[in-house]
Amino acid sequence: MNMTNTMNKSIRCLEQGHVTTPSGFTAGGVHTGLRKKKLDFGWLHSDIPAVAAGVYTTNTFQAAPLKVTQEAIEVDQKIQTIVCNSAIANACTGHIGYKNAKIMQEETAEKMNVAAHHVAVYSTGLIGEQLPMDKIKTGIEQMSEQSAYQVDAFEHAILTTDTVTKHAAVQCEIDGKTVTLGGAAKGSGMIEPNMATMLGFVTTDAVIEHEPLLKALRSVTDQTFNMITVDGDSSTNDSVLVLANQRAGNETLTEDHPDYPVFIQALTLLSEKLAQKIAEDGEGATKLIEVNVTNTHSVTAARKIAKSVISSNLVKTAVYGADPNWGRVVCAVGYSNEPVNPDLVDVFLGPVQVVSGGLPLAFDEEKATDYLKNKAIEITVDLHDGDESAKAWGCDLTYQYVTINASYRT
Amino acid sequence: MNMTNTMNKSIRCLEQGHVTTPSGFTAGGVHTGLRKKKLDFGWLHSDIPAVAAGVYTTNTFQAAPLKVTQEAIEVDQKIQTIVCNSAIANACTGHIGYKNAKIMQEETAEKMNVAAHHVAVYSTGLIGEQLPMDKIKTGIEQMSEQSAYQVDAFEHAILTTDTVTKHAAVQCEIDGKTVTLGGAAKGSGMIEPNMATMLGFVTTDAVIEHEPLLKALRSVTDQTFNMITVDGDSSTNDSVLVLANQRAGNETLTEDHPDYPVFIQALTLLSEKLAQKIAEDGEGATKLIEVNVTNTHSVTAARKIAKSVISSNLVKTAVYGADPNWGRVVCAVGYSNEPVNPDLVDVFLGPVQVVSGGLPLAFDEEKATDYLKNKAIEITVDLHDGDESAKAWGCDLTYQYVTINASYRT
Repeated sequence: MNMTNTMNKSIRCLEQGHVTTPSGFTAGGVHTGLRKKKLDFGWLHSDIPAVAAGVYTTNTFQAAPLKVTQEAIEVDQKIQTIVCNSAIANACTGHIGYKNAKIMQEETAEKMNVAAHHVAVYSTGLIGEQLPMDKIKTGIEQMSEQSAYQVDAFEHAILTTDTVTKHAAVQCEIDGKTVTLGGAAKGSGMIEPNMATMLGFVTTDAVIEHEPLLKALRSVTDQTFNMITVDGDSSTNDSVLVLANQRAGNETLTEDHPDYPVFIQALTLLSEKLAQKIAEDGEGATKLIEVNVTNTHSVTAARKIAKSVISSNLVKTAVYGADPNWGRVVCAVGYSNEPVNPDLVDVFLGPVQVVSGGLPLAFDEEKATDYLKNKAIEITVDLHDGDESAKAWGCDLTYQYVTINASYRT
Repeated sequence: MNMTNTMNKSIRCLEQGHVTTPSGFTAGGVHTGLRKKKLDFGWLHSDIPAVAAGVYTTNTFQAAPLKVTQEAIEVDQKIQTIVCNSAIANACTGHIGYKNAKIMQEETAEKMNVAAHHVAVYSTGLIGEQLPMDKIKTGIEQMSEQSAYQVDAFEHAILTTDTVTKHAAVQCEIDGKTVTLGGAAKGSGMIEPNMATMLGFVTTDAVIEHEPLLKALRSVTDQTFNMITVDGDSSTNDSVLVLANQRAGNETLTEDHPDYPVFIQALTLLSEKLAQKIAEDGEGATKLIEVNVTNTHSVTAARKIAKSVISSNLVKTAVYGADPNWGRVVCAVGYSNEPVNPDLVDVFLGPVQVVSGGLPLAFDEEKATDYLKNKAIEITVDLHDGDESAKAWGCDLTYQYVTINASYRT
């Protein structure tokens, strides 16, 4: 799972980094009783208001907290404190839900001594239940900038059916200054493009204006977070938020800054790492699948085809069973509704080419099966029809997925 | 699962009817060794060339037999013999695959003493392997109009992972004459709109021209076969073919004939029965799910929303687990990309209303759970935004689905 070769050499990934790796950010999490035993209430805080940019689910039933957060950012495009609970999504909750999200915002602002419009609110979990505000208030009372609360607690507090925390950091050089980006994410079920019960929080010390930050976030999201799928469902609560606290001392990043592309590459690398970790931890998943679609006539087509393959339940179960049933890959390419010349298509399962010019090759079945037993599987579809490409990430479909989702609620 | 109330009273369903219920059609099936033990080679024969109309998969990788069949129908819009094998799909097989389908057509024509362009060829099964022509020829040698071969054998011979045969017949009155329609289908995995590894064969004794027959088939398919989904994959081989042998003695059906709508209703009822049977027998399914989307501003929107809900893995697993997790239904409505007013949406699980005006109701959880333990589940989404509606059918997602598809090939 390598980045493109054109990646700027000054960019390095800190796999063990966190959302608090850029200086000026603290985080924490506690247990309030929203979940039985696990941490369920977290916060992320910048010591000064940070320039903020967000992307949000396209689901018609957008949850109340996302509305409150968007309204907050509209005021002066800055956020200082993020507050997030798990267990209850506060979606499909009407006016009461909106009011509760506002209360969560206002009481957080008071506790942390920041402006209410500098507080972003997030919820994730079950749709259609009202937030138990007594528990939310218990959480708010415990908020603090103290180091007694740690980023690890924050990363745990935002999880739902996730089995591991997702975090990373990336560093790059801008104007000769080291700029750091950190990220935390949650995902798991209902993961699909356009921000499906997926939360991503990115921090950076870069000096950057709101507009170029938002533009970078949107383009990067389209090729990372929006290219993962676990089960094709897009949630009511998904969002990625980036906070830039301007501490790195670089010249202000605008679209004209010569190092703006470096910042975008760094954000891409960070987002790709987080996206892969989400896909890898899909509900019941045992394997990370990466689909590379290469040499297409347009990026849009490449993305659509990659998503078609990564979303196929038949491909996902074949990977689970280590069955080199490449016909399902070809079939998914064929129903993507993108124009494809069937006679030019090559398909590779890792290093094993299984289709050449649309026809099956007499490949080494044992070698292919052995490859599919790995924990990270690459499927490459070469369309020989242009020079655009796209990647998508997902996971296998397993018995455990059914177990988790047949009884999530009860 | 009732038809609309406007159904013409003269139309009656013969649940135990077959593709040979209309007079003049015979069918049979044999075992040739394509499958280990099960019947794998079937045929359907009309004693005279019948007016034919077909619809075919939109998958880019359309299988060779579908090309041969389409070319045959183009000649004079008539078919007399249908030949079909299971086990091997003859898809992604290039020039050799096309030639093999032609040989299958020509040798069938010779054996049955009909014109080659009056033979329609079908295959279903694994993608990317060439047909073992020795076995196909063994099958052709055994073809006959004799009653020693029965329609039950035909219905079995076209199956792949299906667990039961699918058949029905319908009768209606046209010009005071009884017109009969019979149908056989296969489905199971890879079932999704636009004809996904689904085969449907419909026979009728109606007197009807090619154009009105094709028009009827297309409109009926859009609201029946194209509204079922098992796993969202659209196959390379799907097709529905209708043969009309003109024996009923009615005045020739054209679009201007006053009873043309009766014929369409009869074809709709037959197709809906077959579609339901396919959905009900989805791979690993334990339950048939029907999604009714009502009061939308357009049929297209209603269909898209119904398909979004019926295709949701989260809805499918919730039904499997009898979990009244209505949030997943609302969520799927929300990501259908159709404009919906969230504040007007009502949702019912069978008789139990769970959402009113976009907000959760305090419903009787036990009653809802009990309802979801039924074998046939209706989910109704009322959008209060017009007077169009659509239905979609699917099945639950189970452990057995994973078992079947993790090892279909090996």
